[in-house]
Amino acid sequence: MTETFVIAQGGGPTAVINQTLAGAVLEVRKRYPGARVLGARHGVRGIRDGNFVELSALSDQQLHLIAGTPSAALGSTRDKPDAAYCEVILKSLRQVGATAFINIGGNDTAGTQQILVEAANNDIAFVHAPKTIDNDLVESDHTPGFISAAEFIAGAFVSVDLDFRALPGIYVGIVMGRHAGFLTTAAAAWQRDDSSAPHLVYVPERAFSAKRFIEDVREAQSRHGRCIVAMSEGVTSEDGRAVVENLVPADRLERDAHGNIRLSGGELGMAIEQLLREGLPGARARVDTFGYLPRGNISTINTTDAREAFEAGAFAVEAAARGGGSVALQYANGATNPQLVPLANVAGKTQHLPDNFLLDDNNQISAACHAYFERLLPKRFTLAEPL
Amino acid sequence: MTETFVIAQGGGPTAVINQTLAGAVLEVRKRYPGARVLGARHGVRGIRDGNFVELSALSDQQLHLIAGTPSAALGSTRDKPDAAYCEVILKSLRQVGATAFINIGGNDTAGTQQILVEAANNDIAFVHAPKTIDNDLVESDHTPGFISAAEFIAGAFVSVDLDFRALPGIYVGIVMGRHAGFLTTAAAAWQRDDSSAPHLVYVPERAFSAKRFIEDVREAQSRHGRCIVAMSEGVTSEDGRAVVENLVPADRLERDAHGNIRLSGGELGMAIEQLLREGLPGARARVDTFGYLPRGNISTINTTDAREAFEAGAFAVEAAARGGGSVALQYANGATNPQLVPLANVAGKTQHLPDNFLLDDNNQISAACHAYFERLLPKRFTLAEPL
Repeated sequence: MTETFVIAQGGGPTAVINQTLAGAVLEVRKRYPGARVLGARHGVRGIRDGNFVELSALSDQQLHLIAGTPSAALGSTRDKPDAAYCEVILKSLRQVGATAFINIGGNDTAGTQQILVEAANNDIAFVHAPKTIDNDLVESDHTPGFISAAEFIAGAFVSVDLDFRALPGIYVGIVMGRHAGFLTTAAAAWQRDDSSAPHLVYVPERAFSAKRFIEDVREAQSRHGRCIVAMSEGVTSEDGRAVVENLVPADRLERDAHGNIRLSGGELGMAIEQLLREGLPGARARVDTFGYLPRGNISTINTTDAREAFEAGAFAVEAAARGGGSVALQYANGATNPQLVPLANVAGKTQHLPDNFLLDDNNQISAACHAYFERLLPKRFTLAEPL
Repeated sequence: MTETFVIAQGGGPTAVINQTLAGAVLEVRKRYPGARVLGARHGVRGIRDGNFVELSALSDQQLHLIAGTPSAALGSTRDKPDAAYCEVILKSLRQVGATAFINIGGNDTAGTQQILVEAANNDIAFVHAPKTIDNDLVESDHTPGFISAAEFIAGAFVSVDLDFRALPGIYVGIVMGRHAGFLTTAAAAWQRDDSSAPHLVYVPERAFSAKRFIEDVREAQSRHGRCIVAMSEGVTSEDGRAVVENLVPADRLERDAHGNIRLSGGELGMAIEQLLREGLPGARARVDTFGYLPRGNISTINTTDAREAFEAGAFAVEAAARGGGSVALQYANGATNPQLVPLANVAGKTQHLPDNFLLDDNNQISAACHAYFERLLPKRFTLAEPL
């Protein structure tokens, strides 16, 4: 039988998601000479609509060029297929004679693959290849895309810290992340010592109190002469509501079809600026919303991340040969390697920051979290000591 | 007579402002063995307060480490000294036996040097060494610090464009710049063709109309399937008021001692989001405020910029030997070199975008502007063509 692989990319793009795509196509070419590889445009939507691009027609050189280009080359989608949508996908996959479907994405994508497995009759291998800057997949030590985004955040906080040493004040950088604080803690990846940024870290995993925030900032400022804060878009109050819900008038909040508030960072940023204006009147305070900048940034593509993403794609082809499942980057004996795990372990689940990554009482990260980042993202430069 | 140089850094830091500092100190060491070099902490404020650090005591190695570290190592200041303040500075300079004072900064810094020249009796050489991400100094082809900040912006827009190809929508990136649009036009430095970002560019040099903006976005979106916008913080309405003044309630605007509105980008961003919500209901629209991220970012230190900033510092020592003045990077016969120009030519003046850098009627940059960026900031990578 001729092998036919279908590949799709879903959810928010990353800087290295095309490494995974190219890794898979090149591995198919190596293992199954003459096999077809079809790319679905805009994820599952392209399968539903029969909108494919013939990836096996591309040269190795073209595939390597795609690999080095950030953001989903096939296009992406936010569609989360239900059982009916999955039936349409399955029909389309059979129509093109698919023997395997590799879907590159996060935990929702794993969920789609899980539904498809249940709807199919073992005639197609369903593989989830990991991708997310949120680093929130269970079973994974870390996820392709995360290290590059973390490198952007780490560099930004080193840089802003130097800026605010030169011209003192309060700075809050608002970082993508609805449920998991990994990317926000990356602000501390290249932290030099206790006196350098970030002085405070606020993540969705810990309740946010506006009163406590002002006290924390005041204390950090008096100790260090400046205060640099890393804050997740998804920070949540003690009542379990997103901070932005408590601080921003309801008519200014945008909601999606599921009633989830859109976390753009902008509204939260304005609310935080107002808190600082009222709580620390006269203080020089600046808030930036990093938004999309860390996600697929060509200036901070990390080479480890690129290599691991490529390897995850190649391994997805091996995973298909083994019958399907989810690919997870796992760390053991000093090395990170892709492993095959059951889809059900990953589908729809969120990996939160380990409890020991944060210190108990002062909105700072722990030695365990520092060690994690030293392993993933070693510092690439030496800075002068402050004069 | 023993030479004594005093050096200070003023205004917003850049990624390479310490190259200029190190360039000057190492040149003094070469020309005047045994000379003293004093660094003033936090700019003119450090001179006023007698707060100096002995830069001539540092090793070459330490100076090279400082050179590679972003943001003003000596600290900076927003003080704009008047005649009385300058008298105090002059007294302090004489107290330490200064023979030359090199002040690294923008057009306000040149203004300070100009006041000092007039107050002194030719006993001290006053030099302005250029620095600004705004690229708004007259007499200069471009300014140290600009290319690195431009590289951040150029990379960000290439990346966001790829992101919005994958997940279509409207994106507005708000870029620092009160009076000059150079940094915002850098969004187009690595533009591939007419179909790639930025689709629209709004700078302070051209009047902004909210109605026209919505029409432009709608048209770009229908033509390209997405719309990526680069907008300066300082965009101004036809009535000459900052756009943020017309769109944001007065009580939310922060003003400085001179009555100037603080342009944080955040308020403008929220106002633009609201315009888009009302003008293009239901459209996916995202706004990010880049704020401090481009200014001294360690991830986008440009090597040409670093070299030119170092050379400008070394040349400042030559400029002192010639009696003082302003150092300007000028371009002639295919090369950029520092030249000595009169302080009065630069002091307090703003270089705006040349009129021919913008097309007349569609908020896009011209071939002349593209050529300028191709010379300053050649693309460092090849991206795959869209599939």
